[in-house]
Amino acid sequence: MSSVEASSRSPASDPLARVAEELLLPLGVDGVHGRRAVYVEIYERLDAFITHQRDPACELLRFPPVMSRQQLERSGYLKSFPNLLGCVAALHGSEASIRAAADVHEQGGEWTRALSASDLVLSPAACYPLYPLAARRGPVQQNGLLFDVAAECFRHEPARTASRQQSFRMRELVCIDTAARALAFRDAWIPRARTLAEQLGLPCAIEPATDPFFGRVGQVMAVSQRQQALKFELLIRLQSDGAPTACMSFNYHLDHFGAVWEIGHQGGGLAHTACVAFGMDRLVLALFCVHGLDPRHWPQTVRKALSIG
Amino acid sequence: MSSVEASSRSPASDPLARVAEELLLPLGVDGVHGRRAVYVEIYERLDAFITHQRDPACELLRFPPVMSRQQLERSGYLKSFPNLLGCVAALHGSEASIRAAADVHEQGGEWTRALSASDLVLSPAACYPLYPLAARRGPVQQNGLLFDVAAECFRHEPARTASRQQSFRMRELVCIDTAARALAFRDAWIPRARTLAEQLGLPCAIEPATDPFFGRVGQVMAVSQRQQALKFELLIRLQSDGAPTACMSFNYHLDHFGAVWEIGHQGGGLAHTACVAFGMDRLVLALFCVHGLDPRHWPQTVRKALSIG
Repeated sequence: MSSVEASSRSPASDPLARVAEELLLPLGVDGVHGRRAVYVEIYERLDAFITHQRDPACELLRFPPVMSRQQLERSGYLKSFPNLLGCVAALHGSEASIRAAADVHEQGGEWTRALSASDLVLSPAACYPLYPLAARRGPVQQNGLLFDVAAECFRHEPARTASRQQSFRMRELVCIDTAARALAFRDAWIPRARTLAEQLGLPCAIEPATDPFFGRVGQVMAVSQRQQALKFELLIRLQSDGAPTACMSFNYHLDHFGAVWEIGHQGGGLAHTACVAFGMDRLVLALFCVHGLDPRHWPQTVRKALSIG
Repeated sequence: MSSVEASSRSPASDPLARVAEELLLPLGVDGVHGRRAVYVEIYERLDAFITHQRDPACELLRFPPVMSRQQLERSGYLKSFPNLLGCVAALHGSEASIRAAADVHEQGGEWTRALSASDLVLSPAACYPLYPLAARRGPVQQNGLLFDVAAECFRHEPARTASRQQSFRMRELVCIDTAARALAFRDAWIPRARTLAEQLGLPCAIEPATDPFFGRVGQVMAVSQRQQALKFELLIRLQSDGAPTACMSFNYHLDHFGAVWEIGHQGGGLAHTACVAFGMDRLVLALFCVHGLDPRHWPQTVRKALSIG
C-alpha cells in the first residue's frame, strides 16, 4: 500500500472524522459528544433557516428528552425497535435500600442491579408525545393540524462514527389530517427539501427507505413499509467511503397514530398522520463536511441562507 | 371561608399554576412538560441576555442530556444524591432475548425486568462532563479556565408544581483555577446576579444554601457545606404561598473535582472549581409569574433587557 493510499484511509482525511475531531468533544461513551461554539452557532442558524422555510401556521411545541413510558409502549415502539429503547431507571424504595445500593458502589460492587424502571423513557423521536396531546383536543377539524416539534432524542446504538449519535436533536413538521391531505403534505415536502438542500449547498439524493425494524419480525415490517412507499430519506455523503447518511426523512404513518390515540377526523374516520423529520445534528455535520470547518469561508449563497455575517 | 379566600387558594389564582397551565403542556408524567412557542421564545431571549452578561472569554460548550455513568459515579454523585439519579437502561443481549422481552409487553406482562443498565446516565447538572474534559488538557495555567456549559438535566423527583421539573435546562459558568481565584469568581457573581435579576424585574433574595444531600448521611454533608459557606442561592417567589424557588446558585467546590479528576494547577497543588448555575426554566417561569403571560405587556426595562420588540 502506498503512503497516499494509507493516508486516504486514515481517519484524519475523512471529512466527517475531521469535523468530529475539531467540533465535537468525546465524553467517554461512543455516540455521545459535547459540542463546540461554532457547531452550536451553525446549529442555531440552521434552526432559524428551517423556521423560515416552513408554514408559519405551524403550532410550535418543544419537548424534553424524556417522555412517558406508557405512551411510547402504547405507540407500538417496543414491537418495532425494542433494541433502540432507552428507559430511565432509578433507585426506588426506602432510604435504607437506596443507601444500601449506593454503598455497594462505594465498596466497588455492581450497584445497578438495584435499579428499576421509572415511568419515563428517553424520547426516540420528537413526535411521539404529540399524538396524545392532539387526541385531547377532540376530532381534527376540516383544515387539519400542523405542528413544529423538536426534542433531543436517544437511540441505544453506540457507534464510533459521528454520523450515528446515541443522543441527537430532531425537529419534525407533523401533519394530522385526512389520508389525502397527510399524504399530500408528505409528498410536497420532498421537492421542498431538495430546494432546501440546494440552498445549503448540500449535494443529496432522495430515495425510498425503511425504518430499522428489529430482527426477523422487523424484516416483514420493512418490506410492507417499502411496498406502500411510506418512507423516503434525504441522503448526504458525509464520508469519502461508506453509505450516505439519512439527514431528513419523509414519513406517512397511515392511520397508525390515529388508531392508537383514537384521533378522529371531522370529515369521518380516523385521522392520518405524516411527518418530515430533520436530523439536525446530521445536517450540521453535513454543512461542515461539505463546506469546511470555517463558516466564514463557506460559499456566499450558503452564508446568505444561514445569515452568516 | 369567604369566596375570596377560596379563590385566592385555588390553583388558578396562583401565578405559577396559571403560567404552567397556559405555557406548558402535560405529558402524562409529573414534572415533565412540553413548552409552547412564547415560552420557547422567552427562553431563547433569556439565554442571549445571559450571553451578553458573562465574560466573553468563556469557552462555550454544550452537552447532551446523557453522560458517562462511570464519570458520574467517579464524581461522587451516588454517595450524595442516589435517589435523584436517572440511569439509562436498555434491552441487551441476543435477538431472541430482546424479542422475548418485547413479547412479554405484547402479552400485557412486566417487560421492564429484562432491562439492564447501560453505560449512560441522564446528566443531573450541566458541569459534570466538563471536569474530565478539562483534566485531559493538563495542568491549569496561571490565568485559569472559564467555561460556559449547558445541558438538559434530569433529577428523579416527580412533583406536581412546575417549579420542580424532572427534566429542565441548566446553564453554568464554571471557573477552574486556584482556590483564591475560584472563590473570587463565585463571590463576584453574587452581586452581578442581583443586578441581573433587577434588570429582569425579578424581586429576589440571595441566601446561604445546601444541596439536597440524601438521607441521614446527607444531613452531615449539608451541615459541613453550610459551615464552609460553599453554596448560595438566588430565590424568587413563584407561588403566592410556599417557599421561594432557587433560580440560580453560586457554588464553590473546593478541590473536589480537582482531586477526583487529578486536575493540577501550574501554580502548585490541585485546581479548585466554582460555578454559577442558571436554572433556565425556573427563570423563564419567574419572568412569566412576575410580569404576566404576554411579554408585549412586560415593563419597558425588562423588554429592553430581553430585546422584545
